[in-house]
Amino acid sequence: MAKTKPAVSPLAPARFPTLPPIKGVRFAAAAAGVKYAGRTDVMLAVVDPGATVAGVFTTSSTRSAPVLDCQAKLAMAQDETAGLAILVNSGNSNAFTGQLGQQSVDAICAATAKTLSLPVSRIYTASTGVIGQPLPHDRIIAVLDQLAGDLSAEYVEDAARAIMTTDTFPKGATAHVTIDGKAATITGFAKGSGMIAPDMATMLVYIFTDAAVPQPMLQAMVSKLNKTSFNAITVDSDTSTSDSLVMVATGQGPTVTDGAAFEAALNTVMLDLAHQVVRDGEGATKFVEVLVTGAISDSDADKVARAIANSPLVKTAIAGEDPNWGRIVMAVGKSGAEADRDRLQIRFGDIVVAENGWVSPNYTEEAGASYMRQSDLKITVDLGLGSSSATVWTCDLTHGYITINADYRS
Amino acid sequence: MAKTKPAVSPLAPARFPTLPPIKGVRFAAAAAGVKYAGRTDVMLAVVDPGATVAGVFTTSSTRSAPVLDCQAKLAMAQDETAGLAILVNSGNSNAFTGQLGQQSVDAICAATAKTLSLPVSRIYTASTGVIGQPLPHDRIIAVLDQLAGDLSAEYVEDAARAIMTTDTFPKGATAHVTIDGKAATITGFAKGSGMIAPDMATMLVYIFTDAAVPQPMLQAMVSKLNKTSFNAITVDSDTSTSDSLVMVATGQGPTVTDGAAFEAALNTVMLDLAHQVVRDGEGATKFVEVLVTGAISDSDADKVARAIANSPLVKTAIAGEDPNWGRIVMAVGKSGAEADRDRLQIRFGDIVVAENGWVSPNYTEEAGASYMRQSDLKITVDLGLGSSSATVWTCDLTHGYITINADYRS
Repeated sequence: MAKTKPAVSPLAPARFPTLPPIKGVRFAAAAAGVKYAGRTDVMLAVVDPGATVAGVFTTSSTRSAPVLDCQAKLAMAQDETAGLAILVNSGNSNAFTGQLGQQSVDAICAATAKTLSLPVSRIYTASTGVIGQPLPHDRIIAVLDQLAGDLSAEYVEDAARAIMTTDTFPKGATAHVTIDGKAATITGFAKGSGMIAPDMATMLVYIFTDAAVPQPMLQAMVSKLNKTSFNAITVDSDTSTSDSLVMVATGQGPTVTDGAAFEAALNTVMLDLAHQVVRDGEGATKFVEVLVTGAISDSDADKVARAIANSPLVKTAIAGEDPNWGRIVMAVGKSGAEADRDRLQIRFGDIVVAENGWVSPNYTEEAGASYMRQSDLKITVDLGLGSSSATVWTCDLTHGYITINADYRS
Repeated sequence: MAKTKPAVSPLAPARFPTLPPIKGVRFAAAAAGVKYAGRTDVMLAVVDPGATVAGVFTTSSTRSAPVLDCQAKLAMAQDETAGLAILVNSGNSNAFTGQLGQQSVDAICAATAKTLSLPVSRIYTASTGVIGQPLPHDRIIAVLDQLAGDLSAEYVEDAARAIMTTDTFPKGATAHVTIDGKAATITGFAKGSGMIAPDMATMLVYIFTDAAVPQPMLQAMVSKLNKTSFNAITVDSDTSTSDSLVMVATGQGPTVTDGAAFEAALNTVMLDLAHQVVRDGEGATKFVEVLVTGAISDSDADKVARAIANSPLVKTAIAGEDPNWGRIVMAVGKSGAEADRDRLQIRFGDIVVAENGWVSPNYTEEAGASYMRQSDLKITVDLGLGSSSATVWTCDLTHGYITINADYRS
């Protein structure tokens, strides 16, 4: 079965954003033929000495060899006087590949370290694509010299394209922040389209800043913001074995002391990238924000939001532009969270659909149906019991998802 | 949007089974026009005095008015010297209908009690279909006289057909059991096709026996067997607001003392009906048994089995007849259960697919692909850590599911 390459998602941004260079970081991309023909599938980022690095990764118990390797390296004390490199391939995830998995990672890291004259402990790799097939790491090693010769601070979009799998568009975002009167920049890119329900980190995400951020502060910010950005999106409730987010602060710009402004800018970049992953959800035609308020606990709010966002019946109703609020009631009911039928309020955008245990007296099917025809939707459920809330972003479930996934791989 | 009635499921049994009459129970069906035109949509079962009754129901916090009414009645001491009746309509679930919901139940129960000269406390109702629309109970009450005049022990199939919604075939099962040398019979029927991931009971299921079973024993058996039958199936991970299973023992046959043989026969009927619900899963083309062994706890085994059975990526791979065992590894990893990549074994039927952290040396894609072309599949995952196991039954996720659910309702 050949996989038909899907057209660009109807929810894609009009264009890839202009991403300013980050002082201290250079990128390159190459076509190694890991799996795909006629496109780039390896990206290299090389960072000057003096940078700090932080990451969050999937909690899957069957996570990939590169994820395990990155986690081990980030858990050790890092030699920040050395430069660092990030090498990522698409087309093969090097997950569930037995002992060969770590051997491939070791071979790639050793060759990259040698090519760039860097310590192996500062080489971070990731692989994304099919699970359970040996990674042809020789093909990747064969393009290292080419990559090293091509490095440029301008090649961010090339890097973002090289890590795509079922993605229909590359995902980038940037934000500026002023620190003690000096400008710093945060730039990131991500890939992800299916197998999206991150449990600790997400997909592949790489974020760079020229600011100087002490490593513990960087790790704390990334871990915190991850919860309400990448961990708050779901395309299909399936969690990847390769989810990785790595953030690098090159330290060539101003030093972050009070973290609030920097954290706000970083949040902008992470949310933007997370939303782009949803907008490229396999087969997606609708971008949906699910907001739950009035829960008795954060955990309950999250349960209800995820029950709605992961419900196949809610997602197919949205695909059919059917204002089927009964399925939202169903999802609230099955969530396991405390809920009182007669205190629920459901809104589509600003339209009050249901309240006091039944359809709202002013609601009309016409208003609901008209709202559902938009491509960006907001569903709000107020549980009326407490003051906790949660937001989750998702997309609809369409024939496109079935077409992509009943055929992918073989 | 008009909903196209789906053709009969390719997994449907060749024919409705011959269900022998149960002494003490009579059935009737009528077309009340609750929602559907040109078909029966109300069924009545009337049981002679002396019967015991037990039930299990959805745990949804937004469960329907008839479910709440049945639960209240079954929680009270029952007058077993009186007869009883079960009245069920399809087309409207009377769920999330505010105060009107209980008013409709009260009106139907009062009218049924009057028509049949039974106490209201022995009238059990259920409604299944669209959520959030007022139940036109007058239409149901209008056919009560016709139903009462039509009662026959032979009309089980008519009853089974009248409760269908998106079902493509009626579901019936029967078993015989010998008690102290005397024959007793257990007969049941069920409906269910979408919104199937029962959490405590399921869909609508009605089971009758002529054996005499003390009510506490009957309730205990039904609750126990429900866990490994209806609670162990999933079509789409969505849990209905109306799931109800009611079992009636008329007491006109032999008395059950040692319950083991009777329980075994009842288990046959419940499993058979549960499997038929999966075989009628919306859009299903494959019937899949997921067996997880070697878990450190029952709870872990169940988590892994459900993670596999509910994974959209696993289910679409099955739809595409793709032996994509990498997606099974992914589902094990995301389940939250304790698992060790290098101790996992995955089998398709008798074919060992993966072991020791990677694809099995003797496995071939041809063997896997050939196996996946069958309509009945068995996926076994041995975690290699303990001695607990769990079985869950599911179906594939196809374009048919999207077609049915992106259009249903309006």
